[in-house]
Amino acid sequence: MHDIRKINVMENIHDENDHIASHVREDLTEKGIFAINVMGAPGIGKTSAIKGLIEKLRGITPYVIEGDIESDIDARALRALGVKTFQINTFGACHLDAPLVHNAVGNMEFDEKGVLFIENIGNLVCPAEFSIGEHALMLICSVTEGSDKPYKYPLAFEKADLILLNKVDLAPHLDFDEAFFMKGLRALNKDAPVIKLSAKTGEGFDEAAAWIAARAGR
Amino acid sequence: MHDIRKINVMENIHDENDHIASHVREDLTEKGIFAINVMGAPGIGKTSAIKGLIEKLRGITPYVIEGDIESDIDARALRALGVKTFQINTFGACHLDAPLVHNAVGNMEFDEKGVLFIENIGNLVCPAEFSIGEHALMLICSVTEGSDKPYKYPLAFEKADLILLNKVDLAPHLDFDEAFFMKGLRALNKDAPVIKLSAKTGEGFDEAAAWIAARAGR
Repeated sequence: MHDIRKINVMENIHDENDHIASHVREDLTEKGIFAINVMGAPGIGKTSAIKGLIEKLRGITPYVIEGDIESDIDARALRALGVKTFQINTFGACHLDAPLVHNAVGNMEFDEKGVLFIENIGNLVCPAEFSIGEHALMLICSVTEGSDKPYKYPLAFEKADLILLNKVDLAPHLDFDEAFFMKGLRALNKDAPVIKLSAKTGEGFDEAAAWIAARAGR
Repeated sequence: MHDIRKINVMENIHDENDHIASHVREDLTEKGIFAINVMGAPGIGKTSAIKGLIEKLRGITPYVIEGDIESDIDARALRALGVKTFQINTFGACHLDAPLVHNAVGNMEFDEKGVLFIENIGNLVCPAEFSIGEHALMLICSVTEGSDKPYKYPLAFEKADLILLNKVDLAPHLDFDEAFFMKGLRALNKDAPVIKLSAKTGEGFDEAAAWIAARAGR
């Protein structure tokens, strides 16, 4: 970020991105779609969380935009469950941006009001810099990552509206220091609820689904 | 990556980066330093692996460059062990690049030949695009991430010279499909050894240290 050309171009790109993100958000709001930007590191359980939440959000129509650098493994799994899923492959790019999501939303059919999960690229850094037109940012982290992540990757934790602490079923086998984690998190973000989650035991899904349903106006 | 200005600037930046990386590599080679770019997602165990490897590489002087967006938690832990450690904070940037490492190397004192671990930002995407003057790229992944990572984040797996599959002590509690992982990996990378690692049990550290020692000419 020491290159002045890069800085100027990046500022322009961020401005354009935010402008398009506002349009995406307005468009989705008009359609009655509550959009959630799902962020987290690779393999942290983003797709599993989305699947579990969709199951709990009965009566609310789910939609998914799957962001992946390559592959459509997750999109195929979601479609197999009957969930309307649009695949974005970035082929190298490390985050979704508003133009990509704008294009996806324009190509999706939203027959009914509902919740749109937008699964970002697995990356705890870059996606946090780009609004993609979401109404809420759901950050998924995990006890397997260690308790120092808010200190090392502050932006994602600062911006999150909801934090899911995943894989808590593995906690007995780990040295996760919850107090240290919460201290780092609360220095950045006073309000976002932290819900402990396990795709294995089902812990936390009811609570997280209730949070989403309340904000989606259901 | 749809913005032509961004593409042009990025190409220039990559060319400049590779040019500086060559200089860093030559400089380190002359000093008798074998440099390892340590890459992997957040919380995958990069610092723990470095610590364990340093312990096994007795008789070889260790040096570390710690890359973090913010914080110096890991650098302090390494210095407490008596390891010469230089901290790079990128304050937002998602990867180390050659100019940053060039500056770090220029400010370090290499009294003796040895091994330099350069711990990159926790990110399975962007660091893979930037050479930082390393002699070898050591990718750390983990059974906790799931077995589909080579399919989803191919560049890091393609470029790796050595792959450490970490946290194997947790494998009994997970559904890690090793055959699927290896199939995806070998489609990208025919040669890199895959060593199973556990900081908890010590598994794999002897083998990984031997790989490093052989290449460092010791």
